[in-house]
Amino acid sequence: MRFEPARGGADGFARARSAGEPADQATVRRSNLSLVLRHLSEHGPRSRSAIATETGLNKTTVSSLVSELQARGLVDETGPAHNGAVGRPGRTVTVDGARVGALGLEINVDYIAAYGIDLAGRVLVDRRASFDAMGSGPERSLDELTRVAEASLAEFEAAKATAAGITVAVPGLIDVAAGTVVFAPNLGWRGVPVVGRLAAALARPTVPVTVDNDANLAALAEFSRGVAAGVPDLVYLTGEVGVGGGVISAGRLVRGADGFAGEVGHVLVDPYGERCGCGRIGCWETKVGLAALVRMATPDHAYGLGVDGIVPDPEERLTEIERRLADGDLRVAQALKEIGRWLGIGGATLVNVFNPRVIVLGGYFARLGIHVLAAAQAELDRLVVTGQESRCAFVASDLGFGAAALGAAHVAVERVLTDPTLVTPVGGNPYQLEERR
Amino acid sequence: MRFEPARGGADGFARARSAGEPADQATVRRSNLSLVLRHLSEHGPRSRSAIATETGLNKTTVSSLVSELQARGLVDETGPAHNGAVGRPGRTVTVDGARVGALGLEINVDYIAAYGIDLAGRVLVDRRASFDAMGSGPERSLDELTRVAEASLAEFEAAKATAAGITVAVPGLIDVAAGTVVFAPNLGWRGVPVVGRLAAALARPTVPVTVDNDANLAALAEFSRGVAAGVPDLVYLTGEVGVGGGVISAGRLVRGADGFAGEVGHVLVDPYGERCGCGRIGCWETKVGLAALVRMATPDHAYGLGVDGIVPDPEERLTEIERRLADGDLRVAQALKEIGRWLGIGGATLVNVFNPRVIVLGGYFARLGIHVLAAAQAELDRLVVTGQESRCAFVASDLGFGAAALGAAHVAVERVLTDPTLVTPVGGNPYQLEERR
Repeated sequence: MRFEPARGGADGFARARSAGEPADQATVRRSNLSLVLRHLSEHGPRSRSAIATETGLNKTTVSSLVSELQARGLVDETGPAHNGAVGRPGRTVTVDGARVGALGLEINVDYIAAYGIDLAGRVLVDRRASFDAMGSGPERSLDELTRVAEASLAEFEAAKATAAGITVAVPGLIDVAAGTVVFAPNLGWRGVPVVGRLAAALARPTVPVTVDNDANLAALAEFSRGVAAGVPDLVYLTGEVGVGGGVISAGRLVRGADGFAGEVGHVLVDPYGERCGCGRIGCWETKVGLAALVRMATPDHAYGLGVDGIVPDPEERLTEIERRLADGDLRVAQALKEIGRWLGIGGATLVNVFNPRVIVLGGYFARLGIHVLAAAQAELDRLVVTGQESRCAFVASDLGFGAAALGAAHVAVERVLTDPTLVTPVGGNPYQLEERR
Repeated sequence: MRFEPARGGADGFARARSAGEPADQATVRRSNLSLVLRHLSEHGPRSRSAIATETGLNKTTVSSLVSELQARGLVDETGPAHNGAVGRPGRTVTVDGARVGALGLEINVDYIAAYGIDLAGRVLVDRRASFDAMGSGPERSLDELTRVAEASLAEFEAAKATAAGITVAVPGLIDVAAGTVVFAPNLGWRGVPVVGRLAAALARPTVPVTVDNDANLAALAEFSRGVAAGVPDLVYLTGEVGVGGGVISAGRLVRGADGFAGEVGHVLVDPYGERCGCGRIGCWETKVGLAALVRMATPDHAYGLGVDGIVPDPEERLTEIERRLADGDLRVAQALKEIGRWLGIGGATLVNVFNPRVIVLGGYFARLGIHVLAAAQAELDRLVVTGQESRCAFVASDLGFGAAALGAAHVAVERVLTDPTLVTPVGGNPYQLEERR
């Protein structure tokens, strides 16, 4: 499974070729390093000779590429030269996943999450804690994010892994190239330079940091693993206070001209409806967001304040709603049915314009999936114009609230697979290094 | 400017490489033929030696590729070997555009259009005639389409060009791979095998035929030339009886899981509105389609029937509406303002989900652009959630009702640029042929 890296950057060789222009040597080298590392990552350990045969690269080139990847600590070569021939024909090249890790962070309205993995997919960090980002403002939120990042990187070090990249997920409009949150209405952020601020505050300033939209990252996580893994046309819905979307079409993230595509929470569904947090009337978010559920299901328990004045974690809030449902609270049952119905109505617009095979329900929708899926699917089937000619299924994510942080970590891994030169050699000339091993 | 061919097919070499798999010899050869032909098409005539330097291919390979392209009648080599050296170092390779043509056909509710071009972009055919496709049914419509195709191909022959492909544009859900119109509500077609039927009926059955959605093809035409040429994120709206959309994101057509993406006419905009032709309530098409305009602006002139019972061409109908507007008919002025307002409302949903830079108004919207653009833009600016952070402009297409046929012709040309082996060599072995020239 391949991720599309943030804003182009991948397969420079292929693009340079298809544009009818020659690729420069450094680009070709980087592309070939990526080709070999990705081949090993996807198909498992094999000999230099097998790599050459399977990639179409010549053996001398493969040997040089493997040596450089070794020097960068990305692959290892093991096993005896068992057939007695000169060189190392019996030796096997393996992705040395344990040495290089990637960290995904997510800041959302009421929590911060961190997810760290190494190149082999081993989980190094998995933490989530309630945090009132809305009330804290960007400065204090970024301080807390830095603290979580430092604690996570310490866990990397304890596992003897070096962080090759950090990606931060934020619910809002992101300028990926500038590393800035342009506007995050539910956090109250506008023009916050997340990348610059975090990179400056980290004790390890050499770790490259990027920022991206939470729903985009979660969509990539779903495309990579979970209930919709490998489905090339899917829409992921975040169910938080806000409702966001990440859209994958033909295996690629739909980003739009400014990277703002997928703002599905603000699709108009009811011109005669309620006013949205964005100031407009009748946005989908006003019908299916967590605040709408809390308002309809537990009017005594206004959103944003818990019983004791402390913002409860969304999971705590959902536990309360499920408890009331189990107790036979008809308002809760009715509210969930209404959320399902409006999920289907807005979902039909997404199906009409994107024609996805699956709409993955994330965040709180996933937690309550069993109570909303039937109503949502029935309404969707009724409203989609293509009818029986195509089929789109609502499915509940099994990645939980951590999908964005998980996707962020995967994106950071993907950057390394796409450009292995992001990982600094352990020291000096890679070829000398190889001799020393 | 590159088109994406129907359903993948392009840059097989690049894809095979990036997927970490070796490309087979035939695929590499086809890709390299395409690379050279496209390079010449985009950058103009140059020597074999310049092609080698600029593409990164070696000189022997380039010579062999040029010879094969010559044999297929796609390039020509001219000029004296002026520097006296062995071989032809002073000779120039040129795309021999005049010999190979491509035909685009469009069948819509009330007209059939044909547009033919050669590889150099010269227009060979440009015709459009009223035709009651809705009333005629698929069989008689395909007979008429075949007649138009034959007449067009006769014009190709008169211009001494061979047709390398035909692409048919149809307003509906298309299974491109099967060559079938799955469902075209405004034509009343369901499961019509357009490609098989047309290919069987043509006197020249060797010409490859494909079928695609009219709005997708028009979007590609706009991306290639006209007011939004080169804008990688754009939405094209067809304004016919139905309202369709073609979406280009990051320079690629968004097709969706079944090729049904872009059914924007059936986006819900008013859950308390009128019933649509699709049977549902409140689709955008009921607010902005040509039938809505005619109903609001000229209630005496019901859609589908002219004053004498004959279906008028849309252009005639629009001429009548413009005449009434010039005469001070307030109903017409009010109707156009209302169309503009609803264009903005539905447009905001498209901007929220796709984040395009431009929405190109095609078909009747383009004709009436001056009367609807201001209201549409004002409503769009008011409703888009990204506000000032991004800017999407409504612009009127200058390609007229012929955009889909034009796009169809370009797609047929693009197929040749992507796979030059689609053009059969004039005879025998290409290398022998080259010697005979």
